[in-house]
Amino acid sequence: MNTRSLEAHAQEMLDLLEELAAFSAPGSGVTRLLYTPEWSSARQFLCERMAEAGLAVRTDRVGNVFGRLSGSRQDDKVILTGSHIDTVISGGKYDGAYGVAAAVTALKVLRERYGRPLRNLEAVSFCEEEGSRFPLTFWGSGNVTGLYNGSEAEACADAEGITLQAAMEACGLEGRQAEAMEEAAQAAGAGGTAGVIEAAEGTAFRADIAAYVELHIEQGIVLEQSAQQIGVVQAIAGQRRLTVKVGGAANHAGTTPMPLRRDALAGAAEMLLELERSATLAGDPLVATSGRLETFPGTPNVIPGEVRFTLDIRHSEAEVLDSFCAGVSEMFYRIAGLRGLTLEMITTLSTAPAPMDQGLCRALEQICLNQGRTYRTMISGAGHDAQLFAPRCPAAMIFVPSRAGISHSPEEYSSPPELAAGLEVLISILYELAYK
Amino acid sequence: MNTRSLEAHAQEMLDLLEELAAFSAPGSGVTRLLYTPEWSSARQFLCERMAEAGLAVRTDRVGNVFGRLSGSRQDDKVILTGSHIDTVISGGKYDGAYGVAAAVTALKVLRERYGRPLRNLEAVSFCEEEGSRFPLTFWGSGNVTGLYNGSEAEACADAEGITLQAAMEACGLEGRQAEAMEEAAQAAGAGGTAGVIEAAEGTAFRADIAAYVELHIEQGIVLEQSAQQIGVVQAIAGQRRLTVKVGGAANHAGTTPMPLRRDALAGAAEMLLELERSATLAGDPLVATSGRLETFPGTPNVIPGEVRFTLDIRHSEAEVLDSFCAGVSEMFYRIAGLRGLTLEMITTLSTAPAPMDQGLCRALEQICLNQGRTYRTMISGAGHDAQLFAPRCPAAMIFVPSRAGISHSPEEYSSPPELAAGLEVLISILYELAYK
Repeated sequence: MNTRSLEAHAQEMLDLLEELAAFSAPGSGVTRLLYTPEWSSARQFLCERMAEAGLAVRTDRVGNVFGRLSGSRQDDKVILTGSHIDTVISGGKYDGAYGVAAAVTALKVLRERYGRPLRNLEAVSFCEEEGSRFPLTFWGSGNVTGLYNGSEAEACADAEGITLQAAMEACGLEGRQAEAMEEAAQAAGAGGTAGVIEAAEGTAFRADIAAYVELHIEQGIVLEQSAQQIGVVQAIAGQRRLTVKVGGAANHAGTTPMPLRRDALAGAAEMLLELERSATLAGDPLVATSGRLETFPGTPNVIPGEVRFTLDIRHSEAEVLDSFCAGVSEMFYRIAGLRGLTLEMITTLSTAPAPMDQGLCRALEQICLNQGRTYRTMISGAGHDAQLFAPRCPAAMIFVPSRAGISHSPEEYSSPPELAAGLEVLISILYELAYK
Repeated sequence: MNTRSLEAHAQEMLDLLEELAAFSAPGSGVTRLLYTPEWSSARQFLCERMAEAGLAVRTDRVGNVFGRLSGSRQDDKVILTGSHIDTVISGGKYDGAYGVAAAVTALKVLRERYGRPLRNLEAVSFCEEEGSRFPLTFWGSGNVTGLYNGSEAEACADAEGITLQAAMEACGLEGRQAEAMEEAAQAAGAGGTAGVIEAAEGTAFRADIAAYVELHIEQGIVLEQSAQQIGVVQAIAGQRRLTVKVGGAANHAGTTPMPLRRDALAGAAEMLLELERSATLAGDPLVATSGRLETFPGTPNVIPGEVRFTLDIRHSEAEVLDSFCAGVSEMFYRIAGLRGLTLEMITTLSTAPAPMDQGLCRALEQICLNQGRTYRTMISGAGHDAQLFAPRCPAAMIFVPSRAGISHSPEEYSSPPELAAGLEVLISILYELAYK
């Protein structure tokens, strides 16, 4: 592989990332919420770029975009790579967009370098992963993998009361987006299979995915702290979210002696401290967090009569996650009991851990060794589109370092050499999967 | 003392309390904020009742009302008793109002039973104690004792931006309230010294107070738990209020391993648990409370980067309070240091403990023994008007039980026999002070 030409391609990918970042609502960082004008523009821009890269562009009814490099074998299975183009509010340039830009670039490089693959290769831009506008996540990959079937779109509305269905229709989706795609195809001026933009399908579900590979920024501090270039993800952690309500007795802060109190906040403090101890003791990759805590009535001179807090607990193995959560529940009830407090724990979200394909993981490690890159195996504590594919087909994730572990912020940053290294590894694994 | 006639007087006091409770803004419980129409009506009603009780009514520029029973001795000193008539929002019928109604009733009983006292006796209704409308407390007793001199009224505004000065003027105060008082005097139809309502003074400060006695509901659970009728208050606790800011690093709840976190909420939890342990260990009457805690950004899947919480610490001895607060500060900084967190502790309020007069306390104990009442000595953890008098003259407080320790709530309740017992003790101590 010629280093000079790879560097030019890496620069193309970085330029594509910068161009994507320009499609943003006003404000700091990048804000590209699902089915907004900036999201629509970014999506059309990507269709054009895929067509220019010689890919056959196809969209589906929810707004996912696929760019195909058809294989020579008589096989309808597809090697899929990509990520999502939606962002959180005031997010960064790299979360999701990096995987999409790298996928388009990787297929372009492979086509230019090696011509037609044996197996079908597709770059994908999922419409949504973050759940920042509508109260659901993975709308893009969820429709592709069958988690959703589109019927959820009527029942789900954003903060302004606009349903997902209405938002899609306002974007010309649900069959009516064909015109924009044809314009893009004409602009790209491509002929034959490459550059043809097919009309949207009646459903977004796809049974033809043979493997899924996602390149993503780590969004954590592990690679930076361990000074490694590449993270080979072994599993995406399963997650439990809970709402905990601790009930005590609101009373006068001056007139209630310490032994006569039923202080909901003191009880919650003991629970949270024990949670931290247990999670630290359980060791990596278990993480447990309370991100929000509220006190009621919330008056400085009144003992809190009620405290509500959130819990977010993750681990890569279902059994460990289950047993840790059971232990937390037991511990919380014990603390509440000893303090005369009431306790309510409501599970608001529960996702199973998603193990990545071990064969793909080993292949990625070998590629890192071959390319002379430092790497480590690791767990993804964050959720990713790849977790929806893992139960259905071999899936893999490649991480590159995030500066200071910061993500979902305008401060999100990975350096050009780090991003280029991820691209190189992606190109190699796709070559292995589609050309050998 | 005839029990039959005392019972009739106690009923009068209870009726007066019920009548006062009717002066309330709409909503649950009693809401009578300073300088509101309901407060003005209650104040005028009290002027009338004082005049009817044969007291010479006088008001001052901030709206305190005094009803005097003049002594026969050539002495301008005054034995003062009463409390405040403002309430918190959705408060109870008893906090403050009990002490005012009992003062008026006690002076009426004394006059009817024993005639003119040797020393001047006055019942007082302080205009404000709670700080529920304007961001300052003890506006009534503070002006009488010289804590305030009225100049604060221009600088201080309520939530709607109305200054204390404008609110006073809207009530016809600041010299212009004389007319309303004259009307009240005419309505009362009294002649001579009793029933005459004097015009407001240029200042509210009074140097003529020889002793101050306040009857109040406990607002705590100590008397009920120890099954005592009367609390003889030894001191009003000093108080420190602080705002504590703990700074950590907001980070992804899924991708940040436990050992790499700087979790502001986990740090705050450790601080609050240690605070509770230290306060319990320090023993009665030390109390330490965090009534409000907030997390930032407050998102379930983000480790809190900042936590702000309030502290309220009280004790009856200045040295113990100082040393406990110093210990808390040291402990918090140690915890923050070990966790790599930043810490800011800002003292927002600091009041010194107010010891009650030991002679008056002993006299009250003797009265309880003579009347065959169960009693206990105790500390007031709550602040009261009496704490402003304690540094200036002998001051005493008498507590009666609060059901379940509940106060500042529509649920606030003390039974008629409990309220009558407090009145009996008050009558006796005033007799000792003014007639012997």
